[in-house]
Amino acid sequence: MRFFSDNAAPVADSVLAAMAAANVVDTAYDGDSLSRGLDDAFSTLFETRVAALWVSTGTAANALALGALCPPWRGIVCHRDAHINNDEAGAPEFFTHGAKLLAAEGEGAKLSPASITAVIDLIANDVHRVQPAAISITNATEYGLVYTPDEVAAIGALARARGFGLHMDGARFANAVAHLGCSPADLTWRAGVDVLSFGFVKNGGMSAEALIFFKPELAADVAIRRKRAGHLLSKGRYLAAQIHAMLADDLWLRNGAAANQAATRIAAAAGAGRLVHPVQTNEIFLAITADEAAQLRAQGFDFYDWAPNEARFVTSWSQPEHEVAALAKALAAL
Amino acid sequence: MRFFSDNAAPVADSVLAAMAAANVVDTAYDGDSLSRGLDDAFSTLFETRVAALWVSTGTAANALALGALCPPWRGIVCHRDAHINNDEAGAPEFFTHGAKLLAAEGEGAKLSPASITAVIDLIANDVHRVQPAAISITNATEYGLVYTPDEVAAIGALARARGFGLHMDGARFANAVAHLGCSPADLTWRAGVDVLSFGFVKNGGMSAEALIFFKPELAADVAIRRKRAGHLLSKGRYLAAQIHAMLADDLWLRNGAAANQAATRIAAAAGAGRLVHPVQTNEIFLAITADEAAQLRAQGFDFYDWAPNEARFVTSWSQPEHEVAALAKALAAL
Amino acid sequence: MRFFSDNAAPVADSVLAAMAAANVVDTAYDGDSLSRGLDDAFSTLFETRVAALWVSTGTAANALALGALCPPWRGIVCHRDAHINNDEAGAPEFFTHGAKLLAAEGEGAKLSPASITAVIDLIANDVHRVQPAAISITNATEYGLVYTPDEVAAIGALARARGFGLHMDGARFANAVAHLGCSPADLTWRAGVDVLSFGFVKNGGMSAEALIFFKPELAADVAIRRKRAGHLLSKGRYLAAQIHAMLADDLWLRNGAAANQAATRIAAAAGAGRLVHPVQTNEIFLAITADEAAQLRAQGFDFYDWAPNEARFVTSWSQPEHEVAALAKALAAL
Amino acid sequence: MRFFSDNAAPVADSVLAAMAAANVVDTAYDGDSLSRGLDDAFSTLFETRVAALWVSTGTAANALALGALCPPWRGIVCHRDAHINNDEAGAPEFFTHGAKLLAAEGEGAKLSPASITAVIDLIANDVHRVQPAAISITNATEYGLVYTPDEVAAIGALARARGFGLHMDGARFANAVAHLGCSPADLTWRAGVDVLSFGFVKNGGMSAEALIFFKPELAADVAIRRKRAGHLLSKGRYLAAQIHAMLADDLWLRNGAAANQAATRIAAAAGAGRLVHPVQTNEIFLAITADEAAQLRAQGFDFYDWAPNEARFVTSWSQPEHEVAALAKALAAL
Repeated sequence: MRFFSDNAAPVADSVLAAMAAANVVDTAYDGDSLSRGLDDAFSTLFETRVAALWVSTGTAANALALGALCPPWRGIVCHRDAHINNDEAGAPEFFTHGAKLLAAEGEGAKLSPASITAVIDLIANDVHRVQPAAISITNATEYGLVYTPDEVAAIGALARARGFGLHMDGARFANAVAHLGCSPADLTWRAGVDVLSFGFVKNGGMSAEALIFFKPELAADVAIRRKRAGHLLSKGRYLAAQIHAMLADDLWLRNGAAANQAATRIAAAAGAGRLVHPVQTNEIFLAITADEAAQLRAQGFDFYDWAPNEARFVTSWSQPEHEVAALAKALAAL
Repeated sequence: MRFFSDNAAPVADSVLAAMAAANVVDTAYDGDSLSRGLDDAFSTLFETRVAALWVSTGTAANALALGALCPPWRGIVCHRDAHINNDEAGAPEFFTHGAKLLAAEGEGAKLSPASITAVIDLIANDVHRVQPAAISITNATEYGLVYTPDEVAAIGALARARGFGLHMDGARFANAVAHLGCSPADLTWRAGVDVLSFGFVKNGGMSAEALIFFKPELAADVAIRRKRAGHLLSKGRYLAAQIHAMLADDLWLRNGAAANQAATRIAAAAGAGRLVHPVQTNEIFLAITADEAAQLRAQGFDFYDWAPNEARFVTSWSQPEHEVAALAKALAAL
Repeated sequence: MRFFSDNAAPVADSVLAAMAAANVVDTAYDGDSLSRGLDDAFSTLFETRVAALWVSTGTAANALALGALCPPWRGIVCHRDAHINNDEAGAPEFFTHGAKLLAAEGEGAKLSPASITAVIDLIANDVHRVQPAAISITNATEYGLVYTPDEVAAIGALARARGFGLHMDGARFANAVAHLGCSPADLTWRAGVDVLSFGFVKNGGMSAEALIFFKPELAADVAIRRKRAGHLLSKGRYLAAQIHAMLADDLWLRNGAAANQAATRIAAAAGAGRLVHPVQTNEIFLAITADEAAQLRAQGFDFYDWAPNEARFVTSWSQPEHEVAALAKALAAL
Repeated sequence: MRFFSDNAAPVADSVLAAMAAANVVDTAYDGDSLSRGLDDAFSTLFETRVAALWVSTGTAANALALGALCPPWRGIVCHRDAHINNDEAGAPEFFTHGAKLLAAEGEGAKLSPASITAVIDLIANDVHRVQPAAISITNATEYGLVYTPDEVAAIGALARARGFGLHMDGARFANAVAHLGCSPADLTWRAGVDVLSFGFVKNGGMSAEALIFFKPELAADVAIRRKRAGHLLSKGRYLAAQIHAMLADDLWLRNGAAANQAATRIAAAAGAGRLVHPVQTNEIFLAITADEAAQLRAQGFDFYDWAPNEARFVTSWSQPEHEVAALAKALAAL
């Protein structure tokens, strides 16, 4: 029973079916009609004109986005525990040609205007210090917490005031929107986000994420840099097909909601006393002893030892009901 | 009737089936058993111990390989018309952090020891000149010509004598092997190749190429750099599944042979007088006038205007028999 | 008797004196009044408002200039024999983060609109090909030839029409201006040059070149990148002092003229039949046999074997009269 | 009366004299005998065979050293307040092509094995995390504190155990040695240091620092990378001359001692209660109010407002006796 990562989940049937339907002779790279249709599909979803590019990993999406917002000689404010800072093997540094990640603090991996200015206001404005050029936030965060539209807007206002770009890592954007019940537009461009990494792979897709530019003029250079980074697949129609399938009938949102609900049940069973962070999306961080962890593993549960006496459980869009029930029961019984 | 690019071809049924079969909960990234099994599969094929990594594009495969063979401050000898020099948007420069491609000449985009030394022997051995560190050849070449094992071995001997690494861009490796009827081992490591970009996407795959290290110790850093480049897909099993399906029953070789045979028929019909290059694999470069090109297009043929009065036709593994016959007939009738 | 390189020449007395005069407690980096005064000094010389930065090598000046004009994913057209292409160890690739140098042809290392378009008009405008963003010319060229203001203006017009930046490597700008007798303004910004590397080190300076921005708004980021490249010396006043001394009483121009005159005498003595290139500045390329070269060396002359049966002699601003006379006599006697 | 920075100090007379003495025709770049003699000079000083390269800034020295010890995809542990992390505009990231600085803690900007392992032991050994490859320490530190040979050796032992390189930023190495009275060998290679940035510019030099390789085999690639970074001055003899003059009669050490003694006097006058850090070398960090700072400035003292209610005073090798006395008196009178 896998609660280790939502990357372990399978691909939604409709996604596989869309890929099979795309299996015809067609134009290479992103010249096919499915790829060409992404701008329209996302413009509809976001209620404004956007440019959209498929990429095959969230790491590439994030790194390309940051490269568009920050030149090599400046910096990007992010949370100390941000995925871009810790879990992408230096991809942001690679794609930006050496920009510096400027780590800020905040409960649950959430930044705020105060925690951002606590970092950047210490940076003297001279040529010796790396000057910030962008802010990156993760929604939902690495600990499963959600920024509300107002919280994003406060950071967006700061970004605009300082002339910074604002990137949102939305590897779990679906889970965030499902939790908030807000419109995707309110959570992004209306709150000042310039570029969104919109994740599908953790949520029912196979190998296609979307990079959404709310300033569409940013996309042209990124399309070049996507190719330069080896990320322009020669048969792009199979990626675009995945994304269209995820957007159809709001599958992305329904899948996000399903994962969240499973997590909510498990969190309730575990009891508030064990929760290291509130459970808002599909990640549950629990205080459990090594002995308890061993008991759970003996019952067949797979999960991540996040820290001493702390474990991470992640539910997926397709987590079987019986697994959720079993874990809930096991945790309640600890 | 598409003869524009083999990238337009669909994906083989067995490849799609293998991907569907992989659609279960499994370990993320490349921790699944399919990904873990690539080393063995390719070691068997190449009759020696190799390390193998999946990547999703040939550009990424090439650029990662070159990064493994050349530090930022040195150079890579390649043909002036090499894909890495002309058609990858500077990916080699990006992944190597600025190494210099040193263009050499040769008929049909083929290098030889003589054409290589004509370039490198002009480079004074001092800190002012960029010193070469690697050679990259494409087999089959960008014009569809094939290096024999002996020709590769001659370049391999030069590489060893100078202490250079040797990379083979095998986007159409299958077509080359199918033409030569040799063993993959003879065409690669036995001839001195250090790293091979083994292409599957043009040949029946969807989004998985293989990077083969004949010096397996090179693979560890490349695995890190693959992640850093955003090329470690979180659901790698779907890429590994494609490759295993392509290797099963030598599908890769049968598909390469099928594409070659279609090209041979078309070339014969066009007549030797029109052939800009001998046709050895699946690319046909023909001398045709703009008027002739227009006639062909009017009959429904799609192809590439390579240069004034020169067109490129590419056949695929799945080129329908009736299309081949139709093009042969149309060319004969010009 | 050194005719190997103008880098072997000593430093002008007034330059040394200016450095000694600067030997007081002063503000660090480029906060001192000498450094702050460079903008004005060069604005006067060039008859327009410019921004000027000192740097300690021509390589750094060129590479910083190119970085300002070309992003990592685009290319710079230069002559195949340009110093930036051959003799700077890949510095342009380093400072631009991997931009591609696009080599063009031309007699005497001179580009023309025709030789430039011969390269760039072959580059399809798509994401696969590296698109040009800048042109770099060297004046005087690596073979000592000079672009006239009209010749520069023709290239400048092409650059503007295509939206490219135009850089001039002026390691021997003084020699070019001395030969032409034109105004520095006519040879640069009035002809469309955006950034000039203005060389002083070969011409009587010690360790200070100037980077001149005819679009002053380009200088701010370059000042940051100069620091990031380790080129912001902490005691910049000693560099600025050198430059002010070179500008005083047109020492730069008088020194350039002196070197040119020495070369002219030597070339005349050698005879037109031996000249591989016309001698316009301070470099003389002669057709001489290995035997003749040995004779000259036996007489104490030091020079560069440029190619088989071809030698390069370079005169300096301080070349002793007796050395010039001796070399002229020796060449005449060959 | 300047106590703002030791970079404001003038150049020692013997250094200027050595530069004037080098003002003859000579071989370019680092082919002159002065440059060629650096290996021997530093091998004598360090009692072992070293390779030495001149560079013109400490930033370049540090960044080149780190590039030699860390590939682009790994990290360098340094103190959060290290000069390389805060004051070099991202030069380490530029020269390493994007390696990550991993900030560790420690009183007075000093690292210890414990503070280093507190950072690196959290880094899971997988391809997602940037793996450390090197450690960089500053001696004397950014707060003027000194690592003893034993303290360096403890870090050196950790570095060796983990397979990391160890770099020492010795911008104020002279001050550290002067304080400790130890041999340069004991403080560096005998304690496990691989590369030292040996600073002269703050200590009586003009524009020459030395990069010392205790593993001489590291120097060859760095010599190439120095050129590639635009740091191979064409008239290197003027840099080498500075360094030889600084080494002659231990001028470097005498100057370091002089600066330290001035600082000691000032610190004593200020009183222990005001010292934010112990004063071991030539930097004095004092707790003073804004009002007190204004009083001092009114008396003609120039210094750095380091933080609210904290000021930094730096003494130089040539600080006039009367300035030291005046500042001591003024501080005592506060």
